[in-house]
Amino acid sequence: MKIAVLGTGTVGPTIAGALAGLGHEVVIGTRDPEATLARTGPGLMGAAPFAQWHAGHSQIGVATFADAAAGAEIVVNATNGGGSLDALTAAGAANLAGKVLVDVANPLDFSQGMPPSLNPVNTDSLAEQIQRAFPEARVVKTLNTMTASVMVDPAGVAGGEHSVFVSGNDVDAKETVTWLLKGFGHRDIIDLGDITTARGAEMIMPLWLRLWGALGTGHFNFKIAR
Amino acid sequence: MKIAVLGTGTVGPTIAGALAGLGHEVVIGTRDPEATLARTGPGLMGAAPFAQWHAGHSQIGVATFADAAAGAEIVVNATNGGGSLDALTAAGAANLAGKVLVDVANPLDFSQGMPPSLNPVNTDSLAEQIQRAFPEARVVKTLNTMTASVMVDPAGVAGGEHSVFVSGNDVDAKETVTWLLKGFGHRDIIDLGDITTARGAEMIMPLWLRLWGALGTGHFNFKIAR
Repeated sequence: MKIAVLGTGTVGPTIAGALAGLGHEVVIGTRDPEATLARTGPGLMGAAPFAQWHAGHSQIGVATFADAAAGAEIVVNATNGGGSLDALTAAGAANLAGKVLVDVANPLDFSQGMPPSLNPVNTDSLAEQIQRAFPEARVVKTLNTMTASVMVDPAGVAGGEHSVFVSGNDVDAKETVTWLLKGFGHRDIIDLGDITTARGAEMIMPLWLRLWGALGTGHFNFKIAR
Repeated sequence: MKIAVLGTGTVGPTIAGALAGLGHEVVIGTRDPEATLARTGPGLMGAAPFAQWHAGHSQIGVATFADAAAGAEIVVNATNGGGSLDALTAAGAANLAGKVLVDVANPLDFSQGMPPSLNPVNTDSLAEQIQRAFPEARVVKTLNTMTASVMVDPAGVAGGEHSVFVSGNDVDAKETVTWLLKGFGHRDIIDLGDITTARGAEMIMPLWLRLWGALGTGHFNFKIAR
């Protein structure tokens, strides 16, 4: 399928590369494609510069948020949570209307010190904010509960014996996302319910961050034992 | 050991019964012991009336919060999160000083509708509130991430292949709690760090509540796959 992945941090390229490897036609969306391709410094936590990554993934297009979304059947929001609404506004409501909008972002708030807290939280979620701002998009929250490498290669942790959640109002959209998740190798895909259940998935992030510190690695995932 | 369990809902009697079964000298603390023993209606979700439960556990004492805490070496806070600070104030700072205070409560806030939200949340936690209010107590947050029956019988879910967290400032207190948890059969006990890490453990509750709805049972637990 034609998939736009918005965001050029660690998560966006990881998801884009995996989707392209599965045969999808992938375009990465960014605010300023020229500036993104001109980046030469290392990314977050020592990731390769975008241009270097892109040289190894030249089949993946790089376009503005709007151009990427316009040509896509599915749009993945892998931008920083704090900038997601701006990025999606730049993508354009008309370019998102009717489409499955996969939200994998976390609304991390660094203004209160480290580790980050969440904003929104508790009685709202980023996924709900996105759904309200783009009512014609079919928002599905998923994958935000694990690190990028585990999102696309679940078998790399405990042989894939762990869980991933989906939240959204549109049953068909959740089916499409479930199919994408199975493509990555996820086996235990739990439908939490409507988009308000994304509060639960987002609020797991503070525990994730403490586990990262306690375990000394982000290479783990939550399994719902039952 | 001499252990006071504060709270007569589902969690308190479950923990008290399990501790007594392991040979500990257990007293349940409640605001008004006579009123608690006079209760004849069913408890939350159809639990047996307290007096009926107590008839089967007559070796467990029933006392005021203060009397229960005064005679104990370890105090377990199994009261409702919204009433925990009041209950512990009734127990008395002097009766908690120097003792391991095991906090298993969740600060569920029903004022915003169902499912409950959390208060405090995000930049504070109930465990931190308790530690601040009773600075001489050695607070350890644990067990709040699972239903009562799983707290004391982890082997009943997936053969015990799941995780429990401890948060607290006092290393010795966490060791004591870890020993208690092993007594129940917990095997994967993860020390998240100081008491602020209880924010992570408490903020998992909204996901727990949605999973309860999605799975149709509370008989599950989180496992950190790694």
